[in-house]
Amino acid sequence: MQLAESTVERIIAEILAQGQAAAEAVARARPATDPALIPVGVSNRHIHLSRPDMDALFGPGAALTRKKAMKQPGQYAAEETVILRGSKGEIGKVRVLGPLRAETQVEISVADGFVLGVRAPLRLSGRLDGSPGIEVIGPQGSVIKDYGVIVALRHIHMPPEVASGLGLVNGEQIDVEVDGPRGGIMRGVAVRAAENSALEMHIDIEEANAFGLKNDDLVRIRKA
Amino acid sequence: MQLAESTVERIIAEILAQGQAAAEAVARARPATDPALIPVGVSNRHIHLSRPDMDALFGPGAALTRKKAMKQPGQYAAEETVILRGSKGEIGKVRVLGPLRAETQVEISVADGFVLGVRAPLRLSGRLDGSPGIEVIGPQGSVIKDYGVIVALRHIHMPPEVASGLGLVNGEQIDVEVDGPRGGIMRGVAVRAAENSALEMHIDIEEANAFGLKNDDLVRIRKA
Repeated sequence: MQLAESTVERIIAEILAQGQAAAEAVARARPATDPALIPVGVSNRHIHLSRPDMDALFGPGAALTRKKAMKQPGQYAAEETVILRGSKGEIGKVRVLGPLRAETQVEISVADGFVLGVRAPLRLSGRLDGSPGIEVIGPQGSVIKDYGVIVALRHIHMPPEVASGLGLVNGEQIDVEVDGPRGGIMRGVAVRAAENSALEMHIDIEEANAFGLKNDDLVRIRKA
Repeated sequence: MQLAESTVERIIAEILAQGQAAAEAVARARPATDPALIPVGVSNRHIHLSRPDMDALFGPGAALTRKKAMKQPGQYAAEETVILRGSKGEIGKVRVLGPLRAETQVEISVADGFVLGVRAPLRLSGRLDGSPGIEVIGPQGSVIKDYGVIVALRHIHMPPEVASGLGLVNGEQIDVEVDGPRGGIMRGVAVRAAENSALEMHIDIEEANAFGLKNDDLVRIRKA
């Protein structure tokens, strides 16, 4: 059997196109098929507000305005920002994250702590006992908090079924491996397994820059 | 033989005091006796100047004024500072490090790069090919550099005999282990073995904060 040259060219082009499509499909599927790969979410300084502090800063009954959804279900960055004032300095345009919470919590970086003059401890969200306070200034008023300023301990949010699939339990600390020229291993990464959560590792900007990471980069879980 | 109770008490007190002194001596000696423990030096953003750029920024024939000696022999922080101006913003009070060098070199953090609008590559000192430029402003004039802005690749200075004692060669990359709640492993740490150097690991402020390190903290070398 003889084939026309044009037919051969068409067949070759089709085979190449299929190969390309297959390679792309494999590349897309890889994160999903390796459950130990976790996307990164980089947190800038921010504040969670209680209802009384929301009232004091933005006026009685004021509501947050949703600006952008966060990856964790129901969480969002609000249009509202505040100023933080410490003994050494101020930082403005600090984003409020919604929804409101039972307690006001300020999350800053180590460098922010030097600017403000606040020695914030490394803590999991919600563990505020013994943490230092700060002045928070909004457009309608200010509040002086006696406690609530922390540097967030790096952690991984995951649904309970993902945790059990990885052999992890809520609250345990694990190692995470990072590739690249500033790669290495982060120890003491907290597992936060909860319903209605999305798989995501939260680190702050200094951790991201020190490891050469940006939003949605993938890191790998290793058992400690 | 009978001993008076007061004599027994005195002997016990002396033994306890000697034990305490011995324990303190061991604690003091430990860093010196474990050659794999390296003190950290944290670098803030800074600039090294060439003679022509020194002339342009501070006036013809101007000399640097020594402010503080660095740990590396002959190196010092100068009283002089400059302003860096990029496409997105400026950073002032950028310290000049002396002595003058053959080429001007600007070392910034990843975060500084975002402020300035400069995508600086991760490089060893002196490897400036293909690096971006920046405007440098001094009290007597300014210069526009076509290249020379880098993020310094973390590295360990050591005399050649220390390197050979640790089984390391100049230019190789190793792992370094960091303890503490933000501990872990830094990969890709360059060995810089040279005469007239002091044993010291150089990291930038973001790396220091991300790993919970400050000046003179000790980290441990591990072969990669």
